[in-house]
Amino acid sequence: MIAILKNGTTPEQKNHLIQWLKKQNLDVHVSEGKQVTILGLVGDTSRVDMELLCSLEIVESVKRVSEPFKQANRKFHPKDTIVEAGSARIGGGYFAMIAGPCSVESEEQIVAVAKAVKESGATMLRGGAFKPRTSPYAFQGMGPEGLRLLELAKQETGLPIVTEIMNINTLELFDNVDVIQVGARNMQNFDLLKELGKTKKAILLKRGLANTLQELLMSAEYIMSEGNENIILCERGIRTFETYTRNTMDLSAIPVLHELSHLPVVADPSHATGKSRLVSSMACAAVAAGADGLMIEVHNDPEHALCDGAQSLTPAQFDDVSRRVRAIREAL
Amino acid sequence: MIAILKNGTTPEQKNHLIQWLKKQNLDVHVSEGKQVTILGLVGDTSRVDMELLCSLEIVESVKRVSEPFKQANRKFHPKDTIVEAGSARIGGGYFAMIAGPCSVESEEQIVAVAKAVKESGATMLRGGAFKPRTSPYAFQGMGPEGLRLLELAKQETGLPIVTEIMNINTLELFDNVDVIQVGARNMQNFDLLKELGKTKKAILLKRGLANTLQELLMSAEYIMSEGNENIILCERGIRTFETYTRNTMDLSAIPVLHELSHLPVVADPSHATGKSRLVSSMACAAVAAGADGLMIEVHNDPEHALCDGAQSLTPAQFDDVSRRVRAIREAL
Amino acid sequence: MIAILKNGTTPEQKNHLIQWLKKQNLDVHVSEGKQVTILGLVGDTSRVDMELLCSLEIVESVKRVSEPFKQANRKFHPKDTIVEAGSARIGGGYFAMIAGPCSVESEEQIVAVAKAVKESGATMLRGGAFKPRTSPYAFQGMGPEGLRLLELAKQETGLPIVTEIMNINTLELFDNVDVIQVGARNMQNFDLLKELGKTKKAILLKRGLANTLQELLMSAEYIMSEGNENIILCERGIRTFETYTRNTMDLSAIPVLHELSHLPVVADPSHATGKSRLVSSMACAAVAAGADGLMIEVHNDPEHALCDGAQSLTPAQFDDVSRRVRAIREAL
Amino acid sequence: MIAILKNGTTPEQKNHLIQWLKKQNLDVHVSEGKQVTILGLVGDTSRVDMELLCSLEIVESVKRVSEPFKQANRKFHPKDTIVEAGSARIGGGYFAMIAGPCSVESEEQIVAVAKAVKESGATMLRGGAFKPRTSPYAFQGMGPEGLRLLELAKQETGLPIVTEIMNINTLELFDNVDVIQVGARNMQNFDLLKELGKTKKAILLKRGLANTLQELLMSAEYIMSEGNENIILCERGIRTFETYTRNTMDLSAIPVLHELSHLPVVADPSHATGKSRLVSSMACAAVAAGADGLMIEVHNDPEHALCDGAQSLTPAQFDDVSRRVRAIREAL
Repeated sequence: MIAILKNGTTPEQKNHLIQWLKKQNLDVHVSEGKQVTILGLVGDTSRVDMELLCSLEIVESVKRVSEPFKQANRKFHPKDTIVEAGSARIGGGYFAMIAGPCSVESEEQIVAVAKAVKESGATMLRGGAFKPRTSPYAFQGMGPEGLRLLELAKQETGLPIVTEIMNINTLELFDNVDVIQVGARNMQNFDLLKELGKTKKAILLKRGLANTLQELLMSAEYIMSEGNENIILCERGIRTFETYTRNTMDLSAIPVLHELSHLPVVADPSHATGKSRLVSSMACAAVAAGADGLMIEVHNDPEHALCDGAQSLTPAQFDDVSRRVRAIREAL
Repeated sequence: MIAILKNGTTPEQKNHLIQWLKKQNLDVHVSEGKQVTILGLVGDTSRVDMELLCSLEIVESVKRVSEPFKQANRKFHPKDTIVEAGSARIGGGYFAMIAGPCSVESEEQIVAVAKAVKESGATMLRGGAFKPRTSPYAFQGMGPEGLRLLELAKQETGLPIVTEIMNINTLELFDNVDVIQVGARNMQNFDLLKELGKTKKAILLKRGLANTLQELLMSAEYIMSEGNENIILCERGIRTFETYTRNTMDLSAIPVLHELSHLPVVADPSHATGKSRLVSSMACAAVAAGADGLMIEVHNDPEHALCDGAQSLTPAQFDDVSRRVRAIREAL
Repeated sequence: MIAILKNGTTPEQKNHLIQWLKKQNLDVHVSEGKQVTILGLVGDTSRVDMELLCSLEIVESVKRVSEPFKQANRKFHPKDTIVEAGSARIGGGYFAMIAGPCSVESEEQIVAVAKAVKESGATMLRGGAFKPRTSPYAFQGMGPEGLRLLELAKQETGLPIVTEIMNINTLELFDNVDVIQVGARNMQNFDLLKELGKTKKAILLKRGLANTLQELLMSAEYIMSEGNENIILCERGIRTFETYTRNTMDLSAIPVLHELSHLPVVADPSHATGKSRLVSSMACAAVAAGADGLMIEVHNDPEHALCDGAQSLTPAQFDDVSRRVRAIREAL
Repeated sequence: MIAILKNGTTPEQKNHLIQWLKKQNLDVHVSEGKQVTILGLVGDTSRVDMELLCSLEIVESVKRVSEPFKQANRKFHPKDTIVEAGSARIGGGYFAMIAGPCSVESEEQIVAVAKAVKESGATMLRGGAFKPRTSPYAFQGMGPEGLRLLELAKQETGLPIVTEIMNINTLELFDNVDVIQVGARNMQNFDLLKELGKTKKAILLKRGLANTLQELLMSAEYIMSEGNENIILCERGIRTFETYTRNTMDLSAIPVLHELSHLPVVADPSHATGKSRLVSSMACAAVAAGADGLMIEVHNDPEHALCDGAQSLTPAQFDDVSRRVRAIREAL
């Protein structure tokens, strides 16, 4: 870490700062320039409060030289992590196709979708039992009963299940869940992350709507620092000024996360775009950008054909996407 | 709520959609135009899943005519809400000056700051005991001991205390806290909001970094829908492309929230700007824009004079801001 | 276009507004509801000032039902436009690989790069003669001499040339240029767009850093409304809060623009990411998302090998990208 | 400027880079650390292409120590600049109240508004003759005739006039204009800025929708580097994810620009919010934040009372704002 001191800093101020930094177990190398003084801080700078340092009167600016995340950092763990979840693997060349409905609605629905997506090549089943909704008046998911139906669908198809947790107090209900999802809104719910770090479950960690890639990796670090290294990162769109799509899918996140970290990265084109007719293009693009997996909403609702147009694909559309994705993976 | 159907929608599709909407207890008024069909939905549209409706194949777009929040809505509650917290009031003409350190660090510190800010006109004391930190390796706050020290400072000065909750399981520790703060990162931690709705505590709800004003009001609605109406809204900056300030303080939020809602609105210039030298200007601006209160970081650390330059003001600087704010309030 | 009037609008106000709208040659259909009155505006609403209408005291909100662009609109021109530029074509199945250096620096450089990229499959040569630079003290390009060197490279290789215009007064210098580029900063330089609309040149129109896709199409409409339909749209990244990449490449722009318009769409991964090591992934992703072409910076500078690491690729790296792109195109 | 080299850079690469930097007339100070090598660059770094340097393979990151703007920089010009325009002054304690209609529409209109706003304390008259419009089909302003009418209003009232230029080829028409406005969309139209730099006219430079404060100052630098120092900076809202207001007014821009530069700063609450009912609050807030002036839309249209609700205020509303602003200025 490098701190640049302002022109006009007195020797006493400099000394004061240096003593304070040394108390934090850092070596401080001083280079005096004509205009500025540069302090090079060596040691475990991941514990340094960069915002505080930055805001000191005498400090012009602060620059990290090394990333603040360690266990998630590829520099210290060059090999790709492979996360296992039931019969499925992801990362290090293993590709995960995660598909299923937005919410679990009934046994019939979840089992039918599970069978259909398995047929088309899905390797995991997704489905929401606890749903984060902007409005308190909207349907909040089936809750524990939804988890039970997911388990049924798993028994029927053998597909490992992925579902979201919203509250640490419900953790014991997730015993038979293979991958616990942390939603975008909870990406910085640090107490939840710490508790999940104490389990051995695979965790699918979604990027927050306004979070940088470094913050995503710091949230992974929260889980890892408690001992759980089974983390799958997920790009699902960020909030920008563009309103045509629900969010802006930041596909450069995929090569960047691969560069910075050894953890597998999946992409969720359904939530990122909010429009089923864009899912196929963006799924293909994510795979071409190097994604280790996809997460796609698929709905099977012959009685309510209306919903075919939602962000969810029909099983037939999913089958088509699945085939295109395979073609691209073979080409690369 | 108005739904515009696409050109080319068949009568069967239209009918199907109308039946589906009616099942949700809505009256549907149909206007057939040359190019489009417009459906006017009358009834309790706050329960309608707008995103789902929007994403249907035959729907061109959807527009809310009435806001999705009810209890927070000024239309149904024209009079300003006045929130009481210990000896302090806020809203409806009552102004709250909330001041104190970022984190509680020691008895000496918190008591000294409390006395100093009271002297300069503060009406509430703030201080963090549980701190949300991006890095798992950074100081996470003193925890329960921090709450105890805040209570001591309250006994010494009579100032009601404001402090942040991060985990619903710690709620019982907040018995003597006057205002429970929900931080920006937890603005959409819906389970936490619901639990706080079951208390009678005053809640200071901070706007999330990437949340719209409507989403902020929907989060207030989560608390109110459980029975707690003692809510203070807080603008603390949003995330934009500008990097000179830590966040971009959106002061238009103040008149907009006053227009849409009856709840009091405070502004936090310390977190929004991240630079102590901008706090005075932005505090004055917030008050001129109509804020019902301010939340300002004040640090008293004679031994570590370095820290005077942080986002926190010294007591002397706070005294100056406090005087300027009073002058503006009198002028208006 | 639909205008929703506020509750409490008087009959006189309504009437006044309706008369004003009729004077603009619009038919107005009125539906009176319990809570709101809805006006359906039929006719050429592309001339209606939506911002003005929106801001009227009695208007709750306004919604366009039809897009404000006409000539660029796929609805009125379902077939893909194929733009021809010298020997190259783009759109409707024709793919353009546009490559070359950021700036033209010397005859030797531009000819060498042109030959190298042609060898690897480029179909057009790019190179800047007039450079928009944030700082007045930075190199502003070679100017007319740069254009002359591009023409030389074209004679040597047969590659059509693409280069940026910054000032309408230099238009006559672009006689031998095959595609005139309008940069992101000039996307809403409307006088420049109109002048280019009076030519028959192919125009490559880059999306502005903070412009929506609809605004991009409205800028295309400026050119088309003057008679020039030879437009290539270009996604080159938008400005967001993420700082790891120079901009955030919005690849969903590709399927969205194809849905809304018949114009060809290219992607520029070099500028969008600002990092050469991300160019290959994002070029592949853009092609998988359906791009009609790519624009890639390639630098050939044996004496200054340092620059190999810039956002520009070396010829060898470009050759590799070119091969991967072909593989994906064949797979789809 | 400081460049941090990556771990693993070879001595040859280092040397190569150092030679390249020295050729740019920079002194290079090398500090070798265990993990990184730091190069301190001393000399005129405003000419260094930071993006290029940043993107070199061996460079971890680059940090400016001094700002890239010189003539606009308060460090080299500590005293506030006072810009004179006809009878009005702005900056260094002089406050400018600029008011008038969005577009000039008729002699009657512009003269009536000019008289009304002068009565209420305006010191300059604004009005658009050339209007930048997103759509080619929208009204583009009265053009030269609009300029003539502004001059008439100036003769009638003595108010100096402020109006926008969109095209350098119309510059000669602006002879009697006191302040030439450069709109947000042209903030980086560098050729236009250079030409305006060759005049002695006062220039009101609006911040672009997605431009940082540093970029705004670099655009001022373009004008100043050609010899014209009469520049007024203008904050008029930036584009963010929030859609309730047209733009997000970044009032922290005011104290930040005052800190970085000696140029006067005005705020435009009409365009920033797009809603007349928010103008008063935001005008007051801007003044409390330290603005040297305001730019407010005022419309006088007894026949089309409809328009009173637009972003423009009525003369009576303007009079009220003007009084509130004076009260705040006196209080501070």
